[in-house]
Amino acid sequence: MKTIEWKDNTLILLDQTKLPTVEEYITCQEYKRVCTAIKRLEVRGAPAIGAAAAYGLLLGANELAATTHDLAAFKQQLAVIKQELALTRPTAVNLCWALEKMTANLDDCQDIPNLLQKLDTTATAIFAEDVDANRQIGEYGAKLIQPDTNILTHCNAGALATCGIGTALGVIRVAHEQGKIKMVYADETRPLLQGARLTSYELQADNIPVTVITDNMAGWVMKQGRIDAIVVGADRIAANGDTANKIGTYSLSVLAKEHNIPMYIAAPLSTFDFELHSGADIPIEERDAAEIRHLHGVPTTRPDVHVYNPAFDVTPAEYITAIITEYGVIHRPNSKNMLEFKNNLNK
Amino acid sequence: MKTIEWKDNTLILLDQTKLPTVEEYITCQEYKRVCTAIKRLEVRGAPAIGAAAAYGLLLGANELAATTHDLAAFKQQLAVIKQELALTRPTAVNLCWALEKMTANLDDCQDIPNLLQKLDTTATAIFAEDVDANRQIGEYGAKLIQPDTNILTHCNAGALATCGIGTALGVIRVAHEQGKIKMVYADETRPLLQGARLTSYELQADNIPVTVITDNMAGWVMKQGRIDAIVVGADRIAANGDTANKIGTYSLSVLAKEHNIPMYIAAPLSTFDFELHSGADIPIEERDAAEIRHLHGVPTTRPDVHVYNPAFDVTPAEYITAIITEYGVIHRPNSKNMLEFKNNLNK
Repeated sequence: MKTIEWKDNTLILLDQTKLPTVEEYITCQEYKRVCTAIKRLEVRGAPAIGAAAAYGLLLGANELAATTHDLAAFKQQLAVIKQELALTRPTAVNLCWALEKMTANLDDCQDIPNLLQKLDTTATAIFAEDVDANRQIGEYGAKLIQPDTNILTHCNAGALATCGIGTALGVIRVAHEQGKIKMVYADETRPLLQGARLTSYELQADNIPVTVITDNMAGWVMKQGRIDAIVVGADRIAANGDTANKIGTYSLSVLAKEHNIPMYIAAPLSTFDFELHSGADIPIEERDAAEIRHLHGVPTTRPDVHVYNPAFDVTPAEYITAIITEYGVIHRPNSKNMLEFKNNLNK
Repeated sequence: MKTIEWKDNTLILLDQTKLPTVEEYITCQEYKRVCTAIKRLEVRGAPAIGAAAAYGLLLGANELAATTHDLAAFKQQLAVIKQELALTRPTAVNLCWALEKMTANLDDCQDIPNLLQKLDTTATAIFAEDVDANRQIGEYGAKLIQPDTNILTHCNAGALATCGIGTALGVIRVAHEQGKIKMVYADETRPLLQGARLTSYELQADNIPVTVITDNMAGWVMKQGRIDAIVVGADRIAANGDTANKIGTYSLSVLAKEHNIPMYIAAPLSTFDFELHSGADIPIEERDAAEIRHLHGVPTTRPDVHVYNPAFDVTPAEYITAIITEYGVIHRPNSKNMLEFKNNLNK
């Protein structure tokens, strides 16, 4: 399953809005198509959005190079494209992280071909590093999983959300390789059903046992003793460990606390935003009412009913048992050990 | 809006599976059609199921009377019909309660016409008593609601679930008459979307402000301080106050506790099952996997994915702030005050 592929100077995206019934690929030859794909959630998942945006900027640079030959003008216009990509979605910080990484050392570039080469190298590196990060997260995370474990996951933090084996599903995949997984419960994750559509599809493809439940069943499934651990991904992690993730994650964290079930966040360093003191500063995207009023085009309510549609919520750090990264595990995250983790990275 | 109507010896049911897009009525001339309607959830909601079953038994008795003229044989065959109606759904106790009430004093009947008359009178009384009970529940419940209140409700415990103004929505309606309701948040209530389809439809029709959210948003909405009280219905209440209600209610009760939000159950006495010591004894219906795998016939997952579909869960009494009945309010329900409540009824 190739979620994101860069081939012959085009970006090929698996259209996630059509899964699991239709496997269709979108060929992006212009950066504007990448902007649209991110907005429409044809590509989604924080790390995948980051990589798509990186390739989107590369596409934009290639487009510019066809018409603009002055380096200063080129850089100026590239900054506009970067800004357009950055504004496609507000919550996942990987988007901005990838764009910043793409443009970090362009000042040295003496000409446009050199700059294009550099952008190409960086985009390729972002992709490759995410593949490696997924594997590392999986290895670190699987150490926290006991034999015979039933895991609950929410949304899709898998191969469809990343460049590799996934973050939360990376942990599940490696734990499954180690024979530790009894069952994965996947919340269907309304409104866009990433759990029902994507997570179950990915896990079935890998022969990992999966049971889909509706979101409102999670508490009852925990109460029945069917869940040993919760593992989810993240869209942005603040300096104190507060974590934005798909709407519903916060409820799961409260339910996990009630049932003494460990709550793990699996996310690469690109999801961390040390600029933000706490989760209160994370911008939460509100999406179109139509997502709640319909399901695959079928109305679920009267067309004029008022809805509220936040796409994410913030789980307070104190409800998180551990954050699993490619550089190791932060147990019981807080401002202090998050800072220590950060400082150790720079050593 | 007439959910249930007995007219010219037929039972007319508003088909709730087609709401809110289509308002269609089902005319039941045979008791077997009532069985089907209950199984298919064309009529649903514990009190409405009770009334429908009562009329179903009356229909069955009328059918029998056309062919059976021996009183003993009639009673025997009526018992079979009663059993068939009783087995249509397992969780809501109102179904059995209504059927027991229908057949409680038939021994006095000396002939079939007399028996039919008695069944007719009892069915009419069950309907009328539910209308009154709803109003009383509304009056008692509204006293617990402060001015300017935002209420969260789950599933549909309204006019569409009862013979009158509803139980949970009865409380909301009376509180709204008193000018106390700021906003009602309605969980969409997967898999069958009773909140999105029915509750929002009912409240809009009465000009009560309503906002639909997906089930997984409830925790985040509470965390943001948007909810002042939760009011839901019930399908069966055990002797200790443990309450079975639509799947997701248990999660709401845990979230309510976390956020110090009162959790109210609104239900008539017909929902109480003093035979059962605790919620652990309440049978929980598991429904077809297709309900989760599809929505109005549109697939939401791969067709072969494993799902778990309990239709109800049990909220422990200790998480319930109060149970609101037509005979008054049981605050902080437990075995002791539930028994006191019961004993006071018999006085």
